[in-house]
Amino acid sequence: MADQKTDDVLNRLDADLPAALDRLMGFLRIPSISTDPAHDDDVAEAANWLANELRDLGFSADVRPTTGHPMVVASTPKGTERTLLFYGHYDVQPVDPLNLWNRPPFDPAIEDTPNGKVIRGRGASDDKGQLMTFVEACRAWKDVHGELPSGLTLLFEGEEESGSPSLIPFLEANRDELSQSLALICDTGMSADGRPAISSQLRGLVGEEIVVHAANQDLHSGSFGGLAANPIQILCDALAALKDENGRVTLPGFYDGVQELSDDLRRDWEALDFDAEEFLSRVGLKHPVGEKGRMPLEMVWNQPTAEINGITGGYTGDGFKTVLPAEARAKVSFRLTGTQDPEKIRTAFRAHVESFIPADCRVEFHEHGGSPAAVMDLSDPAFEAAKQALSEEWNREAVYIGMGGSIPIAGDFKRILGMDAMLIGFGRDDDRIHSPNEKYDVESFAKGARSWARILSALR
Amino acid sequence: MADQKTDDVLNRLDADLPAALDRLMGFLRIPSISTDPAHDDDVAEAANWLANELRDLGFSADVRPTTGHPMVVASTPKGTERTLLFYGHYDVQPVDPLNLWNRPPFDPAIEDTPNGKVIRGRGASDDKGQLMTFVEACRAWKDVHGELPSGLTLLFEGEEESGSPSLIPFLEANRDELSQSLALICDTGMSADGRPAISSQLRGLVGEEIVVHAANQDLHSGSFGGLAANPIQILCDALAALKDENGRVTLPGFYDGVQELSDDLRRDWEALDFDAEEFLSRVGLKHPVGEKGRMPLEMVWNQPTAEINGITGGYTGDGFKTVLPAEARAKVSFRLTGTQDPEKIRTAFRAHVESFIPADCRVEFHEHGGSPAAVMDLSDPAFEAAKQALSEEWNREAVYIGMGGSIPIAGDFKRILGMDAMLIGFGRDDDRIHSPNEKYDVESFAKGARSWARILSALR
Repeated sequence: MADQKTDDVLNRLDADLPAALDRLMGFLRIPSISTDPAHDDDVAEAANWLANELRDLGFSADVRPTTGHPMVVASTPKGTERTLLFYGHYDVQPVDPLNLWNRPPFDPAIEDTPNGKVIRGRGASDDKGQLMTFVEACRAWKDVHGELPSGLTLLFEGEEESGSPSLIPFLEANRDELSQSLALICDTGMSADGRPAISSQLRGLVGEEIVVHAANQDLHSGSFGGLAANPIQILCDALAALKDENGRVTLPGFYDGVQELSDDLRRDWEALDFDAEEFLSRVGLKHPVGEKGRMPLEMVWNQPTAEINGITGGYTGDGFKTVLPAEARAKVSFRLTGTQDPEKIRTAFRAHVESFIPADCRVEFHEHGGSPAAVMDLSDPAFEAAKQALSEEWNREAVYIGMGGSIPIAGDFKRILGMDAMLIGFGRDDDRIHSPNEKYDVESFAKGARSWARILSALR
Repeated sequence: MADQKTDDVLNRLDADLPAALDRLMGFLRIPSISTDPAHDDDVAEAANWLANELRDLGFSADVRPTTGHPMVVASTPKGTERTLLFYGHYDVQPVDPLNLWNRPPFDPAIEDTPNGKVIRGRGASDDKGQLMTFVEACRAWKDVHGELPSGLTLLFEGEEESGSPSLIPFLEANRDELSQSLALICDTGMSADGRPAISSQLRGLVGEEIVVHAANQDLHSGSFGGLAANPIQILCDALAALKDENGRVTLPGFYDGVQELSDDLRRDWEALDFDAEEFLSRVGLKHPVGEKGRMPLEMVWNQPTAEINGITGGYTGDGFKTVLPAEARAKVSFRLTGTQDPEKIRTAFRAHVESFIPADCRVEFHEHGGSPAAVMDLSDPAFEAAKQALSEEWNREAVYIGMGGSIPIAGDFKRILGMDAMLIGFGRDDDRIHSPNEKYDVESFAKGARSWARILSALR
């Protein structure tokens, strides 16, 4: 479907690949580890490298200070097209343990492997290699069109690997500048079976910590057992009653807002041919749990969960003590889908736990975050256009996938900037991000840039 | 009911009280702390002091080495009467924190208090003062009768405060010598309302630790939540299902052997006028839990329990981690009554937990002890005789009481030596045993000795 100009851009990217890889190598040599204050100057250098690169390309670009590491913001003049905000991050993970690397992590190289050429080095995949696919697509676009795509804003963060402390204040302070028609986020991967993928829904999260208080001191179970309330038992009773025998969460109204999978998405997800038993076998398990009668991918992507993430109470050391403890604690989280309301679920959970607390005991609740699911509006034609572009580039049908976890930035863009995000990335399951010997396939880099060129074209 | 000779013994005890207190003071001055190797010589000295005292009195007595602290064994020639084994311990608890004592713990003294005279010092109540009540009764008996009571064996242990590691081997190695018609154990107290009491039933105990294993590593609840088994949830489900909505334990056969309270015991226990709310209010609670429709003392003395003593799994530190842990653990104990079989209950518990474990998970069990309840045979006329003697001495109706905890020695005597035990002691709730400023009421000491004189008389 690509027109001649798009073909020219693609050809230009192919011809320029050696030079593009050289540029990436230069970027990868900067050890921009954001969690380590010893690397603060390196993080600043990476920000400047990127801003210079973008200015050279014709962007209006600058490095904006925050109370932490700076943001790089670049833009092109607005045109008549839909406006886009592209997001990536220029900081990288630490490299420990260094002795497990086969080469120095900040001396990157192209290596031949049985599965093809790879770029080896810290940040090759996460996220310098990925973000440069977009920058290179812009460069080739300009070479062919004579100017950059209009209506484009680029936002690069230097704190993604250290909790993004400055991101929300920065989005709030620059709402007008950063709010565009749609966000593009390049920090995810292909589907497990190697198809190009758009992550179109991410689960939300509610976290709660509960502390059940009974006696004002630990009691001896000989003297008090049978008379005095046991907070561990109360906690177990309340947590066991969170689910019914089919694995459904019992909180009243819990499923309000959960949406049944559309036929289109079901077709996409079935096509992924996800083998839950094989997936679980990697961690020593076999049988999918959860609500009966749902397909496994539906359970991790489109169904909410209630999970106990931690529990503690009484004597937990070696040996045995017949104690009735004064208190017991648990951390519980809910993954949310559709339009489930985090605060309603928090309220329902608290009421559920309260209903198990005897009159002479009490319970404390501590809130640990709450965010709704991020579900993109697939009726926006941009999604189908991007999907089509990806399918053409990779010569395989692209799919919409879900994510069981949260990518906070997607929710932040929705909440603060009021825009949906297309999460498109070219990482592979074996990229070893956050681990020694990180790599990015040269194919991912080359076809990733070509993919963005096609998507930019399609979204014009 | 006392005959002339018994009256003479009682009068003799009254006349000799000042000298008896002096002897106790000498005994209390020996810092026989059994847990502290620095006091090994003191423990040995206390054993020798006791053996000498008993030999002076006319007992055949010696100090028997063990791999730990020695046993003191003394006896009188057998006669035609029922034979008795008296048990006490000559070691004492450590004294820390020393700065909370109002006088040096091993410089005992008689002090006047608003509630009467007390003997202040470590071991005054637990157990030197208590055991000397029996020795002084024997002394007065000999003074009046011209000889010691026949058929009497005394066993004094020096490791009671450090876990009694040598006791069971010693009982097993000296079974013939130590097996008598009945044991007398003087290491307990009066009823809460100050009546003389015989502890006639003690609950048994089964301890189990369970470890539920799911995945072979901690998992991220975003990627795996909804698909992968959560061992904390499995544990909570299994533990919540241990009891029904009335607080009854659901294990099949659990109540086999539990005996309903006899009318006599019910009358005794009702007479104690136990105020469960007042009792619970001391630890910040109010409402008795457990099976509906039972009197509170029945719940702690005559009903079995299932209690979770410890639980741990997943992330329990500050903040929050959305982990699905690889494993979760709990420690569970059952208090047993009547003739409940510890091993049958262990087996039923394990089967119950196993029934909650999915096919791809597994559970490990670790045994932490098991002993049946010790329920004395009150049809033995010795019990009624002793109860009558106590009632006469204290001018209040003596009662049979239960104990919610275990006193291992009572079970050991039953199991290894095949005899019941009468647990009679004169300690008070405010004796501060194991704490700074331990004391023993002079009344307990004086009337305790007189009580034993009456009981010895009654059991002839």
